[in-house]
Parts: sequence; structure tokens; C-alpha cells
Amino acid sequence: MAGEEGPELSRLYQDFESEHLIPLWTQLGDLMPMTPRPAAVAHVWRWSTLYPLARRAGELVPVGRGGERRAIALANPGLPGRPYASPTLWAAIQYLGPKETAPEHRHSQNAFRFVLEGEGVWTVVDGDPVRMSRGDFLLTPGWRFHGHHNETDRPMAWLDGLDIPFSHYTDAGFFEFGADRVTDYATPNLSRSERLWAHPGLRPLSGLRDTASSPIAAYRWEHTDAALTEQLLLEDEGQPATVEQGHAAVRYVNPTTGGDVMPTLRAEFHRLREGTEIPARREVGSSVFQVFEGRGEVVLDGTVHRLCQGDLFVVPSWVSWSLRAEERFDLFRFSDAPIMERLRFDRVHFEGERR
Amino acid sequence: MAGEEGPELSRLYQDFESEHLIPLWTQLGDLMPMTPRPAAVAHVWRWSTLYPLARRAGELVPVGRGGERRAIALANPGLPGRPYASPTLWAAIQYLGPKETAPEHRHSQNAFRFVLEGEGVWTVVDGDPVRMSRGDFLLTPGWRFHGHHNETDRPMAWLDGLDIPFSHYTDAGFFEFGADRVTDYATPNLSRSERLWAHPGLRPLSGLRDTASSPIAAYRWEHTDAALTEQLLLEDEGQPATVEQGHAAVRYVNPTTGGDVMPTLRAEFHRLREGTEIPARREVGSSVFQVFEGRGEVVLDGTVHRLCQGDLFVVPSWVSWSLRAEERFDLFRFSDAPIMERLRFDRVHFEGERR
Amino acid sequence: MAGEEGPELSRLYQDFESEHLIPLWTQLGDLMPMTPRPAAVAHVWRWSTLYPLARRAGELVPVGRGGERRAIALANPGLPGRPYASPTLWAAIQYLGPKETAPEHRHSQNAFRFVLEGEGVWTVVDGDPVRMSRGDFLLTPGWRFHGHHNETDRPMAWLDGLDIPFSHYTDAGFFEFGADRVTDYATPNLSRSERLWAHPGLRPLSGLRDTASSPIAAYRWEHTDAALTEQLLLEDEGQPATVEQGHAAVRYVNPTTGGDVMPTLRAEFHRLREGTEIPARREVGSSVFQVFEGRGEVVLDGTVHRLCQGDLFVVPSWVSWSLRAEERFDLFRFSDAPIMERLRFDRVHFEGERR
Amino acid sequence: MAGEEGPELSRLYQDFESEHLIPLWTQLGDLMPMTPRPAAVAHVWRWSTLYPLARRAGELVPVGRGGERRAIALANPGLPGRPYASPTLWAAIQYLGPKETAPEHRHSQNAFRFVLEGEGVWTVVDGDPVRMSRGDFLLTPGWRFHGHHNETDRPMAWLDGLDIPFSHYTDAGFFEFGADRVTDYATPNLSRSERLWAHPGLRPLSGLRDTASSPIAAYRWEHTDAALTEQLLLEDEGQPATVEQGHAAVRYVNPTTGGDVMPTLRAEFHRLREGTEIPARREVGSSVFQVFEGRGEVVLDGTVHRLCQGDLFVVPSWVSWSLRAEERFDLFRFSDAPIMERLRFDRVHFEGERR
Repeated sequence: MAGEEGPELSRLYQDFESEHLIPLWTQLGDLMPMTPRPAAVAHVWRWSTLYPLARRAGELVPVGRGGERRAIALANPGLPGRPYASPTLWAAIQYLGPKETAPEHRHSQNAFRFVLEGEGVWTVVDGDPVRMSRGDFLLTPGWRFHGHHNETDRPMAWLDGLDIPFSHYTDAGFFEFGADRVTDYATPNLSRSERLWAHPGLRPLSGLRDTASSPIAAYRWEHTDAALTEQLLLEDEGQPATVEQGHAAVRYVNPTTGGDVMPTLRAEFHRLREGTEIPARREVGSSVFQVFEGRGEVVLDGTVHRLCQGDLFVVPSWVSWSLRAEERFDLFRFSDAPIMERLRFDRVHFEGERR
Repeated sequence: MAGEEGPELSRLYQDFESEHLIPLWTQLGDLMPMTPRPAAVAHVWRWSTLYPLARRAGELVPVGRGGERRAIALANPGLPGRPYASPTLWAAIQYLGPKETAPEHRHSQNAFRFVLEGEGVWTVVDGDPVRMSRGDFLLTPGWRFHGHHNETDRPMAWLDGLDIPFSHYTDAGFFEFGADRVTDYATPNLSRSERLWAHPGLRPLSGLRDTASSPIAAYRWEHTDAALTEQLLLEDEGQPATVEQGHAAVRYVNPTTGGDVMPTLRAEFHRLREGTEIPARREVGSSVFQVFEGRGEVVLDGTVHRLCQGDLFVVPSWVSWSLRAEERFDLFRFSDAPIMERLRFDRVHFEGERR
Repeated sequence: MAGEEGPELSRLYQDFESEHLIPLWTQLGDLMPMTPRPAAVAHVWRWSTLYPLARRAGELVPVGRGGERRAIALANPGLPGRPYASPTLWAAIQYLGPKETAPEHRHSQNAFRFVLEGEGVWTVVDGDPVRMSRGDFLLTPGWRFHGHHNETDRPMAWLDGLDIPFSHYTDAGFFEFGADRVTDYATPNLSRSERLWAHPGLRPLSGLRDTASSPIAAYRWEHTDAALTEQLLLEDEGQPATVEQGHAAVRYVNPTTGGDVMPTLRAEFHRLREGTEIPARREVGSSVFQVFEGRGEVVLDGTVHRLCQGDLFVVPSWVSWSLRAEERFDLFRFSDAPIMERLRFDRVHFEGERR
Repeated sequence: MAGEEGPELSRLYQDFESEHLIPLWTQLGDLMPMTPRPAAVAHVWRWSTLYPLARRAGELVPVGRGGERRAIALANPGLPGRPYASPTLWAAIQYLGPKETAPEHRHSQNAFRFVLEGEGVWTVVDGDPVRMSRGDFLLTPGWRFHGHHNETDRPMAWLDGLDIPFSHYTDAGFFEFGADRVTDYATPNLSRSERLWAHPGLRPLSGLRDTASSPIAAYRWEHTDAALTEQLLLEDEGQPATVEQGHAAVRYVNPTTGGDVMPTLRAEFHRLREGTEIPARREVGSSVFQVFEGRGEVVLDGTVHRLCQGDLFVVPSWVSWSLRAEERFDLFRFSDAPIMERLRFDRVHFEGERR
């Protein structure tokens, strides 16, 4: 079907165009490649660059109604002009200055926060004040009102993850403004959601209806750290506990179902022992990682990147990735895996295996 | 946050750009509108225009390995340059000339065919020859080899529906070439899949494992027509059977689960009695309709379009639509509703109701 | 713990008894045998005996309010005094004389009818008249009002299956009287439920909510026979279709889920080619079979029983059974398998395999 | 159908009997009552009676292979001769003397232990030693090897709950002897199962496959107590948290699904504030309660019973029950609710409501 176009074919193509039609045969390879060929590229953002830029934004840009959040999005170099880490994932550094408040709003987009460092901010989710501290993973599932306020005289920055690119592309998003101030300035150590739900294996009888998203607003670092520590100790004792040798990992889950915390987003925490290398793999769907602690390397489609605390990288669909830990290496990861799995597009390929 | 940018802010924005960062606050309204604001627009394509163009393509463009299919895609005027009916849906007229064969291939994209008119083509799905005739709805779920061949000396055209735009955007697609000729040129009246599976309420003991997609390769017109006819007769008898007064409808389903035929695509057939009007509604997610028989109108965001047999129209997300039947009005519909429902983005709003 | 009881121990056992206590150690083997040791025994009932007894009952015993049904239950010889085919299953011959009506009632027990021979009776289920004819399988899920009436001047008999023993044992049953006459004496060929639901792979849009039991009131013989015929033809063509060589089988299912027709009862139809033997197996849970047509043998824990049309046999839990067809051999089967599977007690063992 | 039997009818009934048939019409009211009419009766057993009897058994009856366990079952007075608390539930006091070992075995019956008082025993479940201490709830799901050993020189007694009556009745049980001694005499504070699984909202990546029963071997009192305490504090703060005013409650769940810990058994812990009365209700299915702490009353079908620590009572199906707390009142409850719900026999009726 390639080759010279005669005049009749040219005319046909013009007629197609004027009638809002496009032939498949001229586009097939692009539309339906042999394996995913993402426009998004693997990329690393350095915390040492990001944080000072966020601080400068803190000095120059007010936070308030309209702009809503002082959030600076990782913009994949392969998706020019778009504030997207990948076609499905939004990842941003949000920065809140001393005593600032980010006003309340709600949207159908699902959101979480992961806290690399700092403390002193509370996020208020449907009226429930949730403390944000180092290592915590916090949820704002779709259509819950939420705002943030900083109680201290130090700024605080954290990672925001959302499904904005996905819901923008699929035209699925709704948005609504809420109160200009947060609805509750209390600063409890634990949110009400945790007091009700964060007891292992225990479900309140007042909460027997399964929910699409997790009712736990905050997954605390002390629990995550304990779970990972125990996995490695069990491995030391010769017991099955880790995903692979030297690699402990937990998934954050919805206690009403045992499944992902939100319908579109998966979140996990990984810990590699010093010296551990995990073999290269490709997966359908994209992920963003942030180094929480330690140093190591990621190999992204053959290119080695050294990583330090706070560094972020994105792995687009079907890009090969592997990790190596120079010292104990703790990484937070989030991805669009629930989308791929629920729609049955998930695939994984470990290098060295036959496809 | 609006207003003049000072030089420092300009410099910050430049630094953002060079570090592959984009601030949220300058983009929020676009990214997260109050309600979905699709780039795709409502649009009608006329069968009387489409079919002659397809025939001209049949004369000028060979079908074969490489281009694979003589398929002409509806290209939404709001998504310029892209052969997409909507951000998630592909809809194309496929045309196969007398005695032609479209070679075998497979892909992770899910596909179906709906036959407006004609007969004499068999599609061969993983080795099972499936007759294609007027009114039939035929499945090619992801990763099944399939090719088509026309046994007659008349051309045949039909509607292809796929999730190509969705899997392209999310980088989820794999593709593999198969045999250049179809693997079985038999022309049975019923496919093996139908002989095994298309018995109402009966499941073969050899097929007790649930499958992600329906094992039925063809949903025959005679069954669809009978189901709709009975719904209207039951309504005449005062029995609950129709969706709303004068409006009979069936969903094509996977008999192993009772759910949608494929993980990303919903397909339905609707019949309106003469004179029936169904009230306007907005839904999250997009749909494509094809008039199978009869005449009527669709109102798309306030604009009335008269429709005849074969006409197609697309309803982007949250665009208001309603139907009116001038005579008995039969419409095939497909949509991305399973995506929206599985990811919990589904919403519907009936006009006149409070949101 | 065995051996002589001293006086102190005797006193202890007396004290246990007076305080409503029983020690485990004296009962363990009985309570918790190595493999199921059912009190129920394998047994065959002959149609040639059953039917004349039913006819005599038809002459001597009226049908009407109070006794409700002229049903004669298979009483397992191992469960003396109880009208139970097995601890979970009720199986009875119901007999309705010319022009008789069995009054309406409802109960939480799930029920079905299977028609060995005859026609002319309609069962009215929540107001929907359902024709009963040879080979049909008919549902009365829990808590639906139902009555029967015979329109002809010939009697008719059929098999009733229910979960009466199970719900009696677990104290789960409710009962309510309805109208003394059936609420609708119409005699349509198809019930409304079939007209709405019995179209292969098609689901009415008015019925999108999944139901615990199948909405199809009658599974017609013509469909069952066609499905089995096709499986054997496909096997002849070298295609996978039968459960095992020479053995075609279908399960009656709920089209809203693809699962069993009712929460406690599984129903299937099996066809063996002439000469086919299926290997011996043991299963947790009990079954009742009725020969619909043809002749053959069943081997029950090593004892061979020859079987003719209409003969019934029960297979208690973990009793070994196998079948041999002397000629084409059609059998209806029902069981408590959904109970065992939903509670995860299901196990199967094929003889010759290691346990 | 009642009244005098003529000679012909007598002969018919004799023929029924000799052919292993029983008519429905003579038995209907018994078999299918209007509401459940359990043979089991409501009954209270006193800890002050039970415990001394268990101690005497400890002196007189050895524990070891054959008898397997020194367990004394609550035998419902309405089910004479059977060691059953209800038709579905087994409840027993198990007593283990100083330094004793109960040998390992496994069975398909599901089991748990609840510890009213004491400590110093470890139960070893599939090789994982699990500490037993006051207030803990411990699981032995079906087909896991388990044995117990007492490390101390004091005896210990606890409550065992199983589905023995149910699996005996339905002939679903398998049993296998294991080691005569437990396979691991280690006495860790936490079992490996807890170290891997008992972190709130965190799922190990090595455990992504859902399991029929909970992988958590021990639900510790400190978590149960904290969850209940928080519910009452939240209620004090005006927040929704308790089931009803003054009544905090948690269900023990399987973290892989959010559902019941085992397929046949539900377990919950309830705390009533001093003075709280919960309204009378009837439920399908049976329950056993044990008072963990505090004093109060239960009203069982109108009869008031005062309760102290350790007292147990059984509520058969559809027996009305209500509770009143004289002081803070803590109760452990287990039931067959998963059986009723999975088979769709569950119903509840609150007194004062119309049925």
C-alpha cells in the first residue's frame, strides 16, 4: 500500500480529509506498534534541583483561591508542553510556606501525598485533619474536599501524585471549590480515619460497606518501616517474606477489599538491602519512583542513573528498568497499574525470559 | 496568582522549563475543569458519504500485509490529525472487495465488528471461521489472531470498533503478524464458539473458568431482534421490560460473568418505537452510535441532526444527547463505559435533575 | 485416653452431662473422621416403582392448602425417618392430577423442577406462568410465590429438587401461604422471564443489577439438547468442547453472573455417547441424578446398578461413582456443590490419582 | 389432607416406607415452618462451673495422640447427645496442663481460639509458633497442621470455636495426624504471620494472591482494645464510629479481602458502655458469646440472664436477643454468619419493626 500516490488516490485522501476520515493503512505502525512505543521518556529529576526551585516559588508565588496549590509538576521531556510525568500520572512537588493555607476544593481526580521530609502541615480531608510527617503516605480519593495548612514557621514540601493526565485525556474530571480556609484547624496526631480504621485485621462494624477507595487517610511511616524491617528479618531467618532476595516491599491497600488504595493509582514502598540488584523488567503502564533514603542506581533502558535521597524518576510503559542498592535503599513507588489490571492490559517481561 | 510577571518570576518559569517542570497554578482551569470539557466534538458522519468513499478506496487501495486492513476511521473534528472518534474509541468503515482476504494478525487492542448490510465475509478468529451478516455483532478480543475473507463477488463493508486511541495513549498495545492467508477458509453458518456457547443460560462444563472477554464470537441479529421485539411486546402487556417507555435495549454480554463483552468496550442495541423521545442526558465517557434501521433525530448539545440508515455519530464525554424516533428506530451503540465504571469515573446526569 | 474409667472419671463425666458438656476425646473419630463418613448411603430408586406409587397417591390424597403439594420424597435409607435424599438435598416426585391446582406459597428454600415426561402443567412464579414440558428445567428461587395447575385431563409427574434438609438443619427457613388458586391461569408457550432473559449473550438494560438467583424461570429442553448435540459434533471434528472424551455436559447458570442458578443448588445435564465410561471419582458434597433417556450403569462405591429412563440415584459425599453408557445416555444431575464451593469445602479425587 | 387414614392410604404409606419414600404432606409444618424453629435452645454456661470441671479433667485425663485435645464442648440442651453449641457451631473449653503438649494434626474444619485469661501457651500453626495471651484471637483455618504446648508450670484454658457440627452434618471433613510433638518449641512474642501481615493497610508484595482464610494467625488484644477505645472516644467527639449509641464493635477480617477470617466463621468483639442497652433482634444463623470483662445481662427470647466474666451463651437462629451493660461490658462473639450470607439465607429483624 506504500509507494506513489496517483492523482485519484490523492483525490481520495483529500475527500477523506474533508469528510473527517483518516485511513488506517497509512498510520498502522504508529497506531499499533509491535510493543508499546511511548512518547514519554525515562527521566530523572534531582531533589537538589527541585527543592530550591520550589523554595523560590514559595517566595514569589502566593498560594490561594484560583491557582489553588503551589505545585510544580514533573513534565516529561517526551510530552512537551504538558505537565505530565507520563500519559496517566501527575507528579508534583507541592510547597507550603510558614503559616500558609491552601484552600479547600474537591475533584474527581484521585490524589495522594508522600512526605520525603518535614512536618507541621495538616491536610484536612472531608473535615478530618490529617498530620503530614516524614515517610507518611496520605490519601485524598476522588471527590473529597481537601485543603492544607502549615502550622509552623518553616516551609514544607512533599510529593503529590494524581491521575490528572488520565482523567484529562478521558474527559472524566469534575472540580468544585470549597472553603477558602480549611474547615478544621485542629492538629491531632492521628486523623479520625486512622483511629477508626488503622488497626491490623480489624474492621469497624460501622464500616461494613466496601468502598472504592481506602478509608485510611494516612499510612504512617512507623508501620511501613516496621513491615519492611520484619520482611528482611524473616528473610534472614530463612522464611518466605520478601518479593525476591534482598528486596522487601509492601503495597498500600484498601482494608475493605485488600486491593489498591484508589481505583487508578497503586502505591508501594520498596527496600533493598545494600548490594542488592533486582533484575531488569518491562511492564505495561508507567511508574514514578522517589528515593526516600539511601543511595543506589536505576538502569533505564540501558542507561545508568545514580540516585540520592529525594530524586525522582519516571518509567514509561515497557521501558526496561532495574535497581541496584549501594547502601540500604528505600524507594516510594506509584503507578497506573490498577488501570492496566482492571482493563486487562497488564503484562510484564523479565529480561532473559522468552517473551 | 494572575497578573504581571516580574523578572524574578519570569526567571523562575524559565528555570522550571529547563528543568522539565511546569507549575500547576498557570494551568489549573484547563487541566481540571469544573465539568469535562472534551476537545472531541459531537459529530455526525453520513453513510451516504462514507460508503462511496469506501468503495473508491476498494478500487484504489489493495488490502494486504503491511496496511493490513482497508479501514477508514472516523476522525473527530476536535482531534485534528488523529483517526479517533473520541479519545478512547476507534470507529471505522472496513471494506473488503470480492474474493479479497485481509491477512491474519493479532493485537492487544480489543475489537468488534457490527454489520449494517451485506453478507459473504467470514472473519477467522483464532482459527474459528465466523460468518458476518447483516445485524450481527462480532468480537475479536485482544490478542486473538484474526483475518477476513470475502467469498463472494460483491464487496462488503462494516463498522469496526476498537480501543486503539485508549491503548495508544496509555502505551498498552502489542501487535503481531500472523498468516498472510486466513488459516481456515471454511464457511460454516455458525462458528464453533457459538455452537459451544450461544445457548441461553447454559454453560459448557469444559468452560467453567471465567474469561476476561466473551467466548461468543458472534451475536446474531435474529437473537437481538427477538429480544427487542419481546421487550416491546411485554411493555404492551403492561410488564416491566423496557428501559424507559417505548425504548427497548439489550447489552451484549460475556456469558461467563454477565458483564461487558470486553474489558474496555460496551456494546448495546437500542430500539425506539415510532414517536418515542428519550430525555436528554450527559454521561462521563464517549459513545458512537450507528443507525441500523429507521429514521429519527439526535439532539447533541442542543443541535438537532436528522438520521438515516447507516449514519454514525459520536457523543463525547458529558455532551448532552437525546433521541427521537420518526419511525421504528434501531441503533447500535458502543462506548468506553467499562473503562469509566471499572475506574469509578462513571457519572450520569439527566437534564431537569439537580446535579 | 481410652481404657477403664475410674470412679472419679465417671463422676466427672456425670458432672459434664448435668452441666450440658461433652468431652471431645471420647467422640473424636466420629466427629472428625479421616475422610467424610456419611450416614446417608448410595441408593437407587426405580421410576417403575415410583410412578405407580405417585399415581396411587393421586387417587387417594387430595392436593390443597395445608399439605400444599402431592410430593413424595426420596428418603435415604441411611437417614431413617427423614425425607431427605442426602443431608442437604430434597428430591421428590410431585404428581398433579387432571385439572388440579397446587395452591400458591413461598419459602426461603430454593426449588427447581425437572420434567422427565408429560406436559400440560404450568407453574406460576411470582405471577409469571411457566409451561412445564418434557426435558425442561424450571426454577423457583427462594421467597417467590408459586403454585401449579394442570390444564389437561391427564396427570403429570416431575422431579422437585430443594435445599430443604440443609435449611432445616441450619434453621434458615421461612414460609408464607399465598393465594389458594394460582394468580394467573394463562398458558403461554414462554414465560415472561424467558422472553426477557433467554436470549444468548443478551442482557436487557432493564436488568443490569445482578441477582442471587437466575432470572430465567425455564431452561427449555430444545436448548439443552442442542448444546449437547453440538458438543459431541465438535468433538467429532476434533475440537475441544466436551468435559472428557464422549461426555458432553452443560451447567444451568444465572445469566447475570455466569454462576449457579441458585445459591445452594447446582444443576447440570450430562450426555454420554454409547459405550462411554467415565472414570470413578469422589467429591465432597452430595448429588442426585435422574436418567432422562437411554440405558447404562452407575457404579457406586463398587456396586454396579443398571439404570433405565426415570431411575434416580443419590451419591452421598465422598462416595465413589462412575458411569457407563450402554446406549446414548442422558442424565440430569443436581447437587449441593455451591454450598461446598462457597464455603471452600470442595474437593474431588479421581481414582488412580494419589490423594 | 389430615384426618382418618383409610386402609388403602395405610397401605400406600406402608409401600412408601418399604420403598424409602416419605410424603411431604404429612411433614410440611415441621420441615418448612413459618419462621425458623430451632431444636437448639438458648442457653448460658457459667465460667465458674466450666473452669473447675476443666481443671478436674486436667487431673484425670491425659492429653495425647488419639483423643488429641482436652476440649470440653458446650452441648446444647436442645440437641441431646451431641457436643454442639448449635447445629453449625462447636464451642469448647480447652485445657492444657503445665508443660503439656497437644500433638499436631490437621482437619478441614476451621478453628479459632479466644483467650479469656492466662498465658504461656504457644500454638504452632503450619510450623509458625503463635503466642496465646489474654484477649487474643487466634486462627487455625482448615487443613493447617497445628499443635499446642504449655511452657509454664501453670495450666491454661481457652475457648475453641469450630465449624465441626456443620462439616459433620454436610460430610465435608477430612482429618490427618501430624507430629506427636509440636514442630517448633520456640516461644516468640509475635508469630511470623503477624510480622508479615499485621501492619495496618500494608500488604506484602510476596502475598498478593487472595486467600480463603486470613493469613494473620493472631489478632492481639492490644489492637482490639485500642480500636474499641477509639470508637467510643470518637463517639464522645460526636463522630460516626460506633454501630449504635454506646456500642463499639470490630469484626476480625482477612486482610487480603476485607471479609470474614474464615469461610464459615465470623468473629467479632463488642464493647458496651456502662448502662447501654441494645435493642432486641432476631437473626438467621446462630452465635456464641463469651463475656470477656464486665457485667451485664442478656435477654434471650424474653428471659433475662445476668452475666459475669467468662460466661458463655448461645443464641440459636431467630431467637430474640438483646444486651444490657451494668458496667463496661466486653464480649467476644462468633457465629455462622458467613454461611448464611454466602448462601443468601441471612435475614435480621429488629423488634418493633414490621417484618
